Amino acid sequence: MGDKEKMTIIVFSGEMDKAISAFNLAIGGATSGMEVAMFFTFWGLNVIKKNEGGIKSKGIMRKMLNLMNRGGAKRLPLSKFHMLGLGKRMMKKLMKDVNSPQVEELMALAKEFGVKFIACTNTMGMMGISKDAFIPEVDSFAGVATYLAHARESKINLFI
Amino acid sequence: MGDKEKMTIIVFSGEMDKAISAFNLAIGGATSGMEVAMFFTFWGLNVIKKNEGGIKSKGIMRKMLNLMNRGGAKRLPLSKFHMLGLGKRMMKKLMKDVNSPQVEELMALAKEFGVKFIACTNTMGMMGISKDAFIPEVDSFAGVATYLAHARESKINLFI
Amino acid sequence: MGDKEKMTIIVFSGEMDKAISAFNLAIGGATSGMEVAMFFTFWGLNVIKKNEGGIKSKGIMRKMLNLMNRGGAKRLPLSKFHMLGLGKRMMKKLMKDVNSPQVEELMALAKEFGVKFIACTNTMGMMGISKDAFIPEVDSFAGVATYLAHARESKINLFI
Repeated sequence: MGDKEKMTIIVFSGEMDKAISAFNLAIGGATSGMEVAMFFTFWGLNVIKKNEGGIKSKGIMRKMLNLMNRGGAKRLPLSKFHMLGLGKRMMKKLMKDVNSPQVEELMALAKEFGVKFIACTNTMGMMGISKDAFIPEVDSFAGVATYLAHARESKINLFI
Repeated sequence: MGDKEKMTIIVFSGEMDKAISAFNLAIGGATSGMEVAMFFTFWGLNVIKKNEGGIKSKGIMRKMLNLMNRGGAKRLPLSKFHMLGLGKRMMKKLMKDVNSPQVEELMALAKEFGVKFIACTNTMGMMGISKDAFIPEVDSFAGVATYLAHARESKINLFI
Repeated sequence: MGDKEKMTIIVFSGEMDKAISAFNLAIGGATSGMEVAMFFTFWGLNVIKKNEGGIKSKGIMRKMLNLMNRGGAKRLPLSKFHMLGLGKRMMKKLMKDVNSPQVEELMALAKEFGVKFIACTNTMGMMGISKDAFIPEVDSFAGVATYLAHARESKINLFI
């Protein structure tokens, strides 16, 4: 790890609004000279899943979980006002109106500014998600020990 | 920024129980000699909106969003057991029984002890909320760069 | 407080998935040589309540709240996909399949590795929960001042 000030963000939630908040903070950190690592765990793994369907998983239970939980940056629900998707479509429309970037664009920006994306292997195992379910932008697959090694060196640690 | 130890709290959630937790932590920090800044973003903006209705916003979508999302410290839902408002009324009753201060009183206390209230301009833009929708206790309007400048100098940073 | 690096986790949520995340982080911290304190507040108090029912509380409102909110590590809901308990049973099954420890086992592990469990007296008062409602593994009962004393000395502070 370098000499830059560091920041970590655990993305536990798979909701669009929380993902937007997480990426905005990460981009802000990176553009102000910090080294930022995002750790995606539990429902947060949905944020960095591929948008295409057809992810293979073993066992009927995992198949069901992965179907209900398909993920991909385009499919994230809102944490509030979901209302059969209406709230989400409204929010997306509002964001477009003010030229606010969508989750996918924020993700691309974060990558461009050097933010590291790390997928939590513990929850991947538990939920039966394999590495090929994720977008290629994921930098590494690691567990809680890696997170802690980053976090204890960081000025800012957030759980979102 | 002064010589005091610092603390930041991002208030992302607009729920009563989380707001209570956030203000209790902020008040605790301030009374134990820390410099505390609260950054209200997304649904957390509801916590610092005026209680009166009639907030003007442009466009039918923003009008709808702001209607459903009126905010004001008196109107915050619970994160659990909302049950058509019953859970919330029950919680308020319980809090009164033990002389536990309500959100509005906690907010006033926090101000009295010098806690800074900062509204996130990024989400204000996205959700079409203008400055006059907020209570006068808001100290400033700022974006993620201001948050990061505070957070990297702080001993405690929380996302609620 | 000793010379070890410190970590604090506020467990606000009473949901199974968030509790798993909190205990995994705490165990990770403790096994990598950190001194970890977990502060259970609001719905997070459910995580450290005894599994047996019949907790006495004064007043019909508190009785109702405690009935709906019985808690105990075996009873925690999921933050997503609750679906009348189906999502939770599915998650538990998945965790068993991959030999992932359940909340109760994680809690026991955390204790074994010296993680401190602290119950928030402020919310206990508000919700009318007395000390005998909690499992004996709880180390102490304390308020926000104790949390802040720990957190300002800590390298990692999370709100879950």
